[in-house]
Amino acid sequence: MAEFKVTPWDVEGTVDYDKLIAQFGIKRLDDSLIGKLGKHTKDVHYLIRRRAFYAHMYLENVLADVDRGKKIYLYTGRAPSGPVHLGHIIPWMLTKWLQERLGAPLLFQIPDEEKFLFKDITMEETGKWAKDNILDIIALGFDEKKTKIFLDTEYAGHMYKHACMAAKRITLSTAKSVFGFDNSSNVGQLFYTCMQSVPAFLPSIIEGEPTQCLIPCAVDQDVHFRVTRDIAPHLGYPKPSTLLCKFFPPLQGIGGKMSASREDTAVYLTDTQKDVEKKIRKYAFSGGKDSVEEHRRLGGNPDIDVSFVWLTFFEEDDKKLEKIRDEYKSGKMLSGELKQILIDKLNVFLADHQKKREKAKDRVEKFMMRD
Amino acid sequence: MAEFKVTPWDVEGTVDYDKLIAQFGIKRLDDSLIGKLGKHTKDVHYLIRRRAFYAHMYLENVLADVDRGKKIYLYTGRAPSGPVHLGHIIPWMLTKWLQERLGAPLLFQIPDEEKFLFKDITMEETGKWAKDNILDIIALGFDEKKTKIFLDTEYAGHMYKHACMAAKRITLSTAKSVFGFDNSSNVGQLFYTCMQSVPAFLPSIIEGEPTQCLIPCAVDQDVHFRVTRDIAPHLGYPKPSTLLCKFFPPLQGIGGKMSASREDTAVYLTDTQKDVEKKIRKYAFSGGKDSVEEHRRLGGNPDIDVSFVWLTFFEEDDKKLEKIRDEYKSGKMLSGELKQILIDKLNVFLADHQKKREKAKDRVEKFMMRD
Repeated sequence: MAEFKVTPWDVEGTVDYDKLIAQFGIKRLDDSLIGKLGKHTKDVHYLIRRRAFYAHMYLENVLADVDRGKKIYLYTGRAPSGPVHLGHIIPWMLTKWLQERLGAPLLFQIPDEEKFLFKDITMEETGKWAKDNILDIIALGFDEKKTKIFLDTEYAGHMYKHACMAAKRITLSTAKSVFGFDNSSNVGQLFYTCMQSVPAFLPSIIEGEPTQCLIPCAVDQDVHFRVTRDIAPHLGYPKPSTLLCKFFPPLQGIGGKMSASREDTAVYLTDTQKDVEKKIRKYAFSGGKDSVEEHRRLGGNPDIDVSFVWLTFFEEDDKKLEKIRDEYKSGKMLSGELKQILIDKLNVFLADHQKKREKAKDRVEKFMMRD
Repeated sequence: MAEFKVTPWDVEGTVDYDKLIAQFGIKRLDDSLIGKLGKHTKDVHYLIRRRAFYAHMYLENVLADVDRGKKIYLYTGRAPSGPVHLGHIIPWMLTKWLQERLGAPLLFQIPDEEKFLFKDITMEETGKWAKDNILDIIALGFDEKKTKIFLDTEYAGHMYKHACMAAKRITLSTAKSVFGFDNSSNVGQLFYTCMQSVPAFLPSIIEGEPTQCLIPCAVDQDVHFRVTRDIAPHLGYPKPSTLLCKFFPPLQGIGGKMSASREDTAVYLTDTQKDVEKKIRKYAFSGGKDSVEEHRRLGGNPDIDVSFVWLTFFEEDDKKLEKIRDEYKSGKMLSGELKQILIDKLNVFLADHQKKREKAKDRVEKFMMRD
């Protein structure tokens, strides 16, 4: 049995997503619930169809509110510590789609203190990356009338009080057992989860009545919201719902979580076309065979081929994807050809994104909730 | 040996102030340093002369800056959880005098989350008491041009970032050993000291260069600033200086710290003349003898007589005080007469204070730093 460990700050080993369901006490996203979501969204996003989003908590509560025409909020976030890479935007792509389909307001938290508290990075650096990352967020196309982006260090005047109300209900003992803190942890780390709880309360505070929020995020974040769900009812807020996705794998191989700190594991949204080509060609782990002759004869393994797996996150067209899978598996398509398909797909996406990113520079203040 | 325990949240047993000096690693306020302070303040405040303020840390650094004409700041605070009583204002009276004599700006923190995190009180209640207590603070006569009052929950947008910078340098291990936290402590309590550190950094942040601050407070608060002093140099700020006073004793007897939650132990600034008379007559522990005859013969003990001890905090005139001491000790003055002197003294003070408190209602916004 492969050992693995998933916390909001570190992923070790090869993640077994099925085991995580039991370990985290989360629920598998099943066809019935997806069907109910689809009633409101017309179609179902490919990231859900393909179970990149594979688990949830209390999604049924969100759908019940949508059913009866009650306003719900979306909430997601980004803790800045480096450039945004393709893995980061997976939850945001789904969030954007949910915003469009459900017409929901979105609270986008930038916890610019988190990485400062947990990693070897200064507050100046997290602040710099916050500014940078916000451009990528805006470029993804969120509705400027319905999206509020805020930095914890700027918006704390509206957050700290509520964070304290959460904090009073989280003992040191709970924090240690849930997050694995020990005596060498700093007191900011211990308090931080309270700040991540607050945006789940804000919908109710803003609306002046209990208002449900739905949090699309990577599965490692659910632990924060597990704590939030324990607290929320005591403060008169609904338990936040999460929609949880698997990790976007690093170029080196499926299993772990991509790291923004190792340049050769990720494709950044600011990479040039040449960067992308070079990284995929050089680093993308291949499920192909060692020789062309052998590959033609035995075929490749798409399930462990990072280029193919990345395509499942970016190629919307199921038929195209199936065709690639078949041809690769049969040996008709070579590893280099598969890589080229991914390179082309990403470069079209990034060329468009980078144009929008430039334009985003003039739109920042339309999105920001500064105080 | 009498056991005693002093933390910022609880005082148990009869405090031995000499032992506290060793226990807290603070310094006794000696004649030489008082002399140096007196050069700038012309005279020396009776609370210092009488060693109500009896200890300090780094006062010499403040005086060195004053010597060379460098700006220094004062910082004190009030964690609201009930009405202000006479004990609370002792550090503030000295702070006001220091502001006048040194022409120093004052940061007055209202940590309206502290008692919420540490005691059985709601955030609504601490908020209500914050508003109430601010009137007493203003009524004491601080310079409205040089005094900024702020609530943690309102001003957190300017504090939280700096609190995190402190937090990164305080391990759970340190917090446990310094403050005595355990597994049942909540994570807000663990983080709180960081918020109390921030106003010690604000002078440097506001001035844009390292700027010394002097914190007049009760001796139990030094533990927070001991932690602040460990952190400050790493963040480029000077170590804050403290000027530390003994506790104003409860009516029931010298030794402990007055509690705002037990009505019969304290005189509040909003008490009526009749309240004051009743409380002193009924509850003030007397150092007098059991009968008039015996008292006349043997005299009273002013050192354990709460009325006399309270007078040492409120009667500015040394000669008057000495005369009272002598007459009480000799038996010439009876306990009831001593009590009447205190009642009259307090009621004159409170009548004036309550007038100023009414006027303070229109002046609140002149003092507040809201965001």
